[in-house]
Amino acid sequence: MLMQNYARVNLGFKKGKGAVLWDFDDKDYIDFGSGIGVCSLGHSHKKLAKTISKQAHTLLHTSNIYQIKPQEKLSDKMCELLREPYYVFFANSGAEANECAIKLARKYGNSFKEKKYEIFSLANSFHGRTIATLKLTGQEKFHPNDFAPYPEAFKFFGSIDEIIANLSDKTAAVMVELVQGEGGINPLDKADIQKLAKVLKEKKILFITDEVQCGVYRTGEFVTSQIYGVSPDIITFAKGLGGGVAMGACASKEDIFKFGDHGSTFGGNFLATTAGICVLDELEKLKVDGKLDETISEFEAMLDSLVERFPNLFVKRVGLGLMQGLVLKNPENLGKIFTKAMENRVLILKSGKDTLRFLPPLNITKKEIKKGYKRLLKTLKDKELA
Amino acid sequence: MLMQNYARVNLGFKKGKGAVLWDFDDKDYIDFGSGIGVCSLGHSHKKLAKTISKQAHTLLHTSNIYQIKPQEKLSDKMCELLREPYYVFFANSGAEANECAIKLARKYGNSFKEKKYEIFSLANSFHGRTIATLKLTGQEKFHPNDFAPYPEAFKFFGSIDEIIANLSDKTAAVMVELVQGEGGINPLDKADIQKLAKVLKEKKILFITDEVQCGVYRTGEFVTSQIYGVSPDIITFAKGLGGGVAMGACASKEDIFKFGDHGSTFGGNFLATTAGICVLDELEKLKVDGKLDETISEFEAMLDSLVERFPNLFVKRVGLGLMQGLVLKNPENLGKIFTKAMENRVLILKSGKDTLRFLPPLNITKKEIKKGYKRLLKTLKDKELA
Repeated sequence: MLMQNYARVNLGFKKGKGAVLWDFDDKDYIDFGSGIGVCSLGHSHKKLAKTISKQAHTLLHTSNIYQIKPQEKLSDKMCELLREPYYVFFANSGAEANECAIKLARKYGNSFKEKKYEIFSLANSFHGRTIATLKLTGQEKFHPNDFAPYPEAFKFFGSIDEIIANLSDKTAAVMVELVQGEGGINPLDKADIQKLAKVLKEKKILFITDEVQCGVYRTGEFVTSQIYGVSPDIITFAKGLGGGVAMGACASKEDIFKFGDHGSTFGGNFLATTAGICVLDELEKLKVDGKLDETISEFEAMLDSLVERFPNLFVKRVGLGLMQGLVLKNPENLGKIFTKAMENRVLILKSGKDTLRFLPPLNITKKEIKKGYKRLLKTLKDKELA
Repeated sequence: MLMQNYARVNLGFKKGKGAVLWDFDDKDYIDFGSGIGVCSLGHSHKKLAKTISKQAHTLLHTSNIYQIKPQEKLSDKMCELLREPYYVFFANSGAEANECAIKLARKYGNSFKEKKYEIFSLANSFHGRTIATLKLTGQEKFHPNDFAPYPEAFKFFGSIDEIIANLSDKTAAVMVELVQGEGGINPLDKADIQKLAKVLKEKKILFITDEVQCGVYRTGEFVTSQIYGVSPDIITFAKGLGGGVAMGACASKEDIFKFGDHGSTFGGNFLATTAGICVLDELEKLKVDGKLDETISEFEAMLDSLVERFPNLFVKRVGLGLMQGLVLKNPENLGKIFTKAMENRVLILKSGKDTLRFLPPLNITKKEIKKGYKRLLKTLKDKELA
């Protein structure tokens, strides 16, 4: 039996192709959520499937005691796309990528004569489900007393200005999602972020961007930091990186760990990193061809049209690239629209209390967008919404 | 570039088959480590590779918002093999499985009028690399001040008797590896464990077995608890469960979490859980056929013969099933034998300060064992060992 920790809906899928999923009655669904941004190349992508198949018939895993070529290759590819040298550690999830970042920050802070150990985050942030990343998550509901005691010295603040005002010689690092994904789709202010990056550099405090959801071309560039014009000390990755194969990564400008400071049995295994290389190659092509930017325009236009046609329902469109939200006038409609959309066979996500979230595959086609749009139109015309 | 957190050797592999790996010069290596017990069915197992390939061409991943049939099926299979009903949560690693167990224990403890929040573990234990699981790890070297502050209320003790003596109305749970894997290969005493289980039940304290390394038939039964004749409240799994696909699991007798208390984006995805079903089906067959027990006898006999032939090097054989160790008289030989064995093309692992660790694929053949044995003989005859 499964634990009842998820509020699962009464729907499951047997297969997928591109941005389409099929249920057990062979009904097709347009997937505007891609497994919370994981299936960046859509479902059963031919080249990715072949890559995985070939690797499964060759070698899935060895210990990290040994050299793992695709792991090296993927880290090099990531640095190439980051356009700066970074040291990469491979983990198995976003939470594990952030745990690595926390350990790096703490060890970095410990190297000062006046030890720095505090890590700051933002209200409405989400950084993971482990004990430490829950505490670093700025949404109180995620770290109830039920799981206490938590580690100390994680502090969250309502704004970047507040973060800056509270920096002290005890602060080791600041971690932010440049576009918050769970507490509403909130792109942070560019000027704020550039100011923060500058102040942190001056104060020798690490600047960490959690790009678990917004990274890997989700917002239009390889990392969202590139859009913001900042160069973080540490960047964390997960969701879209493996295209559906579980993996996370933590990239750091400084090689802070010594032998034995950190590790993972599965992290950076042949299967996941070979998949990751394929994903990045395909997404880079999509970007260079101009196809990704085109898709972003189409998707934004589709959402803008919804806002225009349903001024009674929506406040505005928010987001960057293919990480988009529609803010609702009435939060009570959030669950209703999610459910009705599903009934009309278009899959969307929720974020925060009042935002419909859209994270379609990055290679979604015009035809699929159009089909999803029609189903959303039908959904939003429902008389029960108010 | 990769972070320098692993002390990697100058050797890597391009393919594997069964218990054999090939390096880039096409030299074959007998694999007595199986990626630290991960490749439970050996390398490029035909049925597992086909299963993975088929799933990659069908559907890798959806969100846990939706029902995921292979996840349900795998949890049912695990309960069948556990011979008791459990509620299962799927994670991506052993560390994440233990984080889940910690959260369950804390929430359980919080339900008492006099809140229980302490979690006990054993010296020489290893429970993971996240901030919380590091602190629960009984080996001090894993939780240096570098990563502090850690969460409070994790305590470790030198023996089961000491654990029992220190239980209080603040103790929520006790977590043990029935066969410790990282701090030497240490099977705990059966009478001690049965006594502990009884006392914990009386005191309403959760009994958690960390079977990340020793579970999934590694020691001869599906879980090592079955060998010890105890029925833990919570059991954690990882390594061998996916046969090379990253996954972890936490099984609990009580369904403690409510909606939203815990989650994972990747956990329980189609790829990993479909692989897991294949792995358990194959391993169950191996067990029922008597093949696994036969292999265990052969492997033990092989190790016993080494102890007998090299009384100058070895104190004794330790371990259970295919989780075995050879304790060295001189700890200085640990690194030497590891390296020389590799030069002689047989791969073994280290554990603790003085133990050679063996975690071969569970379907290793007689021929492969024999080949590895010959290479070990050659290694151990080396005059540089003393």
